[in-house]
Amino acid sequence: MKNISIIGATGSIGTQTLEVIRSDIHKYKLIAVTANKSYEKMIHIIDEFNPEIAVLTDEMAYKNLCSYFKDKSIKTEIKFGMEALNEAASNKDADIVVTSIVGMIGLMPTISAIRAGKDIALANKETLVVGGEIVKEEAKKYGVKILPVDSEHGAIFQCLQGNDHKAVKNILLTASGGPFRGKTEEELKNVTVKEALNHPNWSMGSKITIDSATLMNKGLEVIEAHWLFDMPFKNIKAIVHPQSIIHSMVEYKDGSIISQMAVPDMKLPIQYALNYPERCEAVIEPLDFFSIPSLQFEKPDLDTFKCLKFAYEAGEAGGIMPTVLNAANEYAVDLFLKEKISFNKIHEIIYDALNSFENKCIKDVNTIIEENKKVINYLKNKYNK
Amino acid sequence: MKNISIIGATGSIGTQTLEVIRSDIHKYKLIAVTANKSYEKMIHIIDEFNPEIAVLTDEMAYKNLCSYFKDKSIKTEIKFGMEALNEAASNKDADIVVTSIVGMIGLMPTISAIRAGKDIALANKETLVVGGEIVKEEAKKYGVKILPVDSEHGAIFQCLQGNDHKAVKNILLTASGGPFRGKTEEELKNVTVKEALNHPNWSMGSKITIDSATLMNKGLEVIEAHWLFDMPFKNIKAIVHPQSIIHSMVEYKDGSIISQMAVPDMKLPIQYALNYPERCEAVIEPLDFFSIPSLQFEKPDLDTFKCLKFAYEAGEAGGIMPTVLNAANEYAVDLFLKEKISFNKIHEIIYDALNSFENKCIKDVNTIIEENKKVINYLKNKYNK
Repeated sequence: MKNISIIGATGSIGTQTLEVIRSDIHKYKLIAVTANKSYEKMIHIIDEFNPEIAVLTDEMAYKNLCSYFKDKSIKTEIKFGMEALNEAASNKDADIVVTSIVGMIGLMPTISAIRAGKDIALANKETLVVGGEIVKEEAKKYGVKILPVDSEHGAIFQCLQGNDHKAVKNILLTASGGPFRGKTEEELKNVTVKEALNHPNWSMGSKITIDSATLMNKGLEVIEAHWLFDMPFKNIKAIVHPQSIIHSMVEYKDGSIISQMAVPDMKLPIQYALNYPERCEAVIEPLDFFSIPSLQFEKPDLDTFKCLKFAYEAGEAGGIMPTVLNAANEYAVDLFLKEKISFNKIHEIIYDALNSFENKCIKDVNTIIEENKKVINYLKNKYNK
Repeated sequence: MKNISIIGATGSIGTQTLEVIRSDIHKYKLIAVTANKSYEKMIHIIDEFNPEIAVLTDEMAYKNLCSYFKDKSIKTEIKFGMEALNEAASNKDADIVVTSIVGMIGLMPTISAIRAGKDIALANKETLVVGGEIVKEEAKKYGVKILPVDSEHGAIFQCLQGNDHKAVKNILLTASGGPFRGKTEEELKNVTVKEALNHPNWSMGSKITIDSATLMNKGLEVIEAHWLFDMPFKNIKAIVHPQSIIHSMVEYKDGSIISQMAVPDMKLPIQYALNYPERCEAVIEPLDFFSIPSLQFEKPDLDTFKCLKFAYEAGEAGGIMPTVLNAANEYAVDLFLKEKISFNKIHEIIYDALNSFENKCIKDVNTIIEENKKVINYLKNKYNK
């Protein structure tokens, strides 16, 4: 029996983690769940899985949830706020914590979970992007495993099994290219939110889907891969592979390339992380080689999709630059989703932020949190009058 | 320092093994070499590598080799015949024996090497096809590793690293499809030896190139994979992949597929087998994803390429049927190469042999050698009047 907590249980990865749990209720037990506003989804989760604790970070949603269960007898303790979020992340009965919350907000609960000695199934890529150094140190100190849940990092993790780290030459991170692959910057001038949300292969949350359209998602993944797999940036290469069948690859120094393939379905990397190193019965459809299209590969266009280039640069620079990159991206994507800025303005805002902040070393989590705030404030003053 | 013997040193795999040895003479030392008739190539090998023993199995070639070195002082002992071949295979100073001889003749020296406690880098697929049961037993008894040198089995072996055998669902054996992919049996009626030898991706010896054109090569590999990886035939699937970039794959029960890719160059699987589990600096060109064609996959056409179907059937039947299949194939391919029969006659002869011999259990190596002789005699009487 594997006891599981999910930080961000109502989003895309959270919901699919629940599907994995549902696939074998004798194997998995849900201990703690958190969400922001989605109290209605939370009602269903509590009814179905009876977790020990459920946390909402939005006060109104919390009140609605409490009021729904007021006259009902449930085992689940319902709590509110950021402190409760960290409490859920470090619940003593959990074996593994799935961090499927989106954005920089995932950093603190992940660190809480690590400090409580929990293995992490990491779907929140921002955690490693902004706090890679700290998170790796803490994980080492508390002896916990950081298991990637991203399809790409899950693939790389599988391709590394049974091989010596010293034999790795390059990590080849595949990218679908998103809905705007092949377009020029000029052609992207007037694209709509709806067009940007129309991802060709993956069904994901809106923030990450926009990140896929700008290739910032790949950029964040490059930084994540740097920390997860201890690889220099020059040895992490993004390759556009529009079919999303090969989920990433590892090139070894002898010229051999190991790749991982599957239908594009996040339930596989979730299941693999939850059960590593064991492989369980499939929760996804098998891949049929006789019905898939031919597999293609292209160089990413860094002139049009500047976010990927900025991510490499911020990653190489280290210190707070990935925090600046991520804060500016979170802010700009939010403005784009609210239709306040154009698509190309996203990379312009990130460029502005990267050039407006001096780099500095990260002393502790507070450095990250403070710098994040500073960037958001700077951008608010400038772009959201 | 790795001490290496090569059984079949002047053929395609033998020559490429010498290239691998040449790539790092501080890492490898050539101990013993054997060939059939190619005494001129053997002169160069002796001059360059100074092995302890060199064996030729053709008497005239042996005499020519002796006469060449008559007045020269060399360290190499030159010997003749089948007994000397087995002696070379079991030379006490070798760590690993590369069995790159082609055909059923590779069985005895492989067994000699195993009984002398040598690890085997197995390129001779007929060894496992006809004697899989015996070879596996002997390898277990003498505690030696059988390391595959075929590009396909080398790929599968790599894809299995770090995984539990119980988690394997299917082995996906890729096939280029050979020069006649997409052709009908009618269209193959009058193809020439030259056309059949024109393989699209691989440069190999003539026997194996014809086997690639008939898909018997894939059939032999299916049987080899059965023994090497302890998999039932129904879980070994041949997939036509015309680009020969993916060298084979393993499908796990969770739906994840691990594949191995590289440029089509046998030096990689040779090097991997010689150094397993270590990966060394590349002796092949890197694979450039931005210049390769799209990767395609097709079902093999078992109605046209009947040899592959026959191999599955003979493999499933077990006993001496793979020996009958292999003997008939060796015989028929030889006739085709001598332009005595048409291309389609190859599968007809094999079909005839498979239907003319009763199956029986294999007691020991002699059963195999005797049955092999019987099949050849039967076919000689019928087809080579």
